[in-house]
Amino acid sequence: MSTPPIFDEAFAGKLDELIAWRRDVRRFRPEPLPEESIAHLLALTEFSPSVGHSQPWRWIRVRDEARRQAVRESFARCNAEALDDYQGEQAALYARLKLEGLRDAPEQFAVFCDHGTGQGHGLGRRTMPEMLDYSVVTAITQFWLAARARGIGVGWVSILEPEAVSAALDTPPDWKLIAWLCVGYPQEEHADPELIRHGWEVGRGRETPTPDG
Amino acid sequence: MSTPPIFDEAFAGKLDELIAWRRDVRRFRPEPLPEESIAHLLALTEFSPSVGHSQPWRWIRVRDEARRQAVRESFARCNAEALDDYQGEQAALYARLKLEGLRDAPEQFAVFCDHGTGQGHGLGRRTMPEMLDYSVVTAITQFWLAARARGIGVGWVSILEPEAVSAALDTPPDWKLIAWLCVGYPQEEHADPELIRHGWEVGRGRETPTPDG
Repeated sequence: MSTPPIFDEAFAGKLDELIAWRRDVRRFRPEPLPEESIAHLLALTEFSPSVGHSQPWRWIRVRDEARRQAVRESFARCNAEALDDYQGEQAALYARLKLEGLRDAPEQFAVFCDHGTGQGHGLGRRTMPEMLDYSVVTAITQFWLAARARGIGVGWVSILEPEAVSAALDTPPDWKLIAWLCVGYPQEEHADPELIRHGWEVGRGRETPTPDG
Repeated sequence: MSTPPIFDEAFAGKLDELIAWRRDVRRFRPEPLPEESIAHLLALTEFSPSVGHSQPWRWIRVRDEARRQAVRESFARCNAEALDDYQGEQAALYARLKLEGLRDAPEQFAVFCDHGTGQGHGLGRRTMPEMLDYSVVTAITQFWLAARARGIGVGWVSILEPEAVSAALDTPPDWKLIAWLCVGYPQEEHADPELIRHGWEVGRGRETPTPDG
């Protein structure tokens, strides 16, 4: 058994900065990512918290152009329908937003939750079965932060039809789509979210965290 | 606009250690947490990713003993029913597991998702409405890591009846329970999850991450 690591104040402060500067990235540079970085980030996801230690996340690295195209088409359909929900200035603003980097991101991952897994023996999800899905979300969140710490941007696309994505990837029927992730080096770095910068949402006031006592 | 911070290899490696040594804590020391640490960790949650920048997380710090007692009673009911699902040795093992720190954790938080919020104007959750709940899970995950970086342990309790928790806290009907969190200084630190250590689940093999290239 190894000795617990020590996390000092400097590290905690830097982690705060990482959290503050994580962004949902939609503008990617075309350069490929180092294979070892991808392998490392995926290996790290196994350390995510999961209900009953079920580890239900299933990551699919999608490189096939026909499959990516099917997902872009699903986005285009969903986005056109979403635009119909808005009127006037809000519709004009929505139409101008860049909501995904599906065309540019060099790496793309579909992340599913395996509802058929026996791992964990059902522990902890009898009254809250959604815990299985949440366990995949925790893995995605940790992947996001670990990527950002290496200068790698992540964008989570949810303007998709889950059934179209599952069909494009031919996944088992028990797998539920949780996220489509665009991954690559970002074109720019920002402290403020894209949706605030472009006037979609003001949000609640946030102060850059100061060191705690 | 401030200059983007630089995250070096040493920080990324330390973040990996944080991810590897984060645990679901069920054994807490009784000492209270510094108020400024609690305030800092809660302020930090506002920087979590959320669909459409909806920030739908609602954190309730639960200090009232009667409310905590109602939650412990809900756990006791759910846990007894869960035990009935297992037989023989697995039932005996389940009965021996320590699954929560509801009696000991000095701080406890109920975390809800506000399904009634107008913030975000519905963006990004038309075809995947569950994104709102997932946005709360990302906030909890970041809280967990930021707490662990300060030596503070977090345990997520899901063996509860959401409706009993909502009733005990008298929350608005639009609020959905996502998590009950026990928070405090851990009695011990471990690299391996409690459920592996006590033989409930072997899990997939995990290797302590090595520095990537």
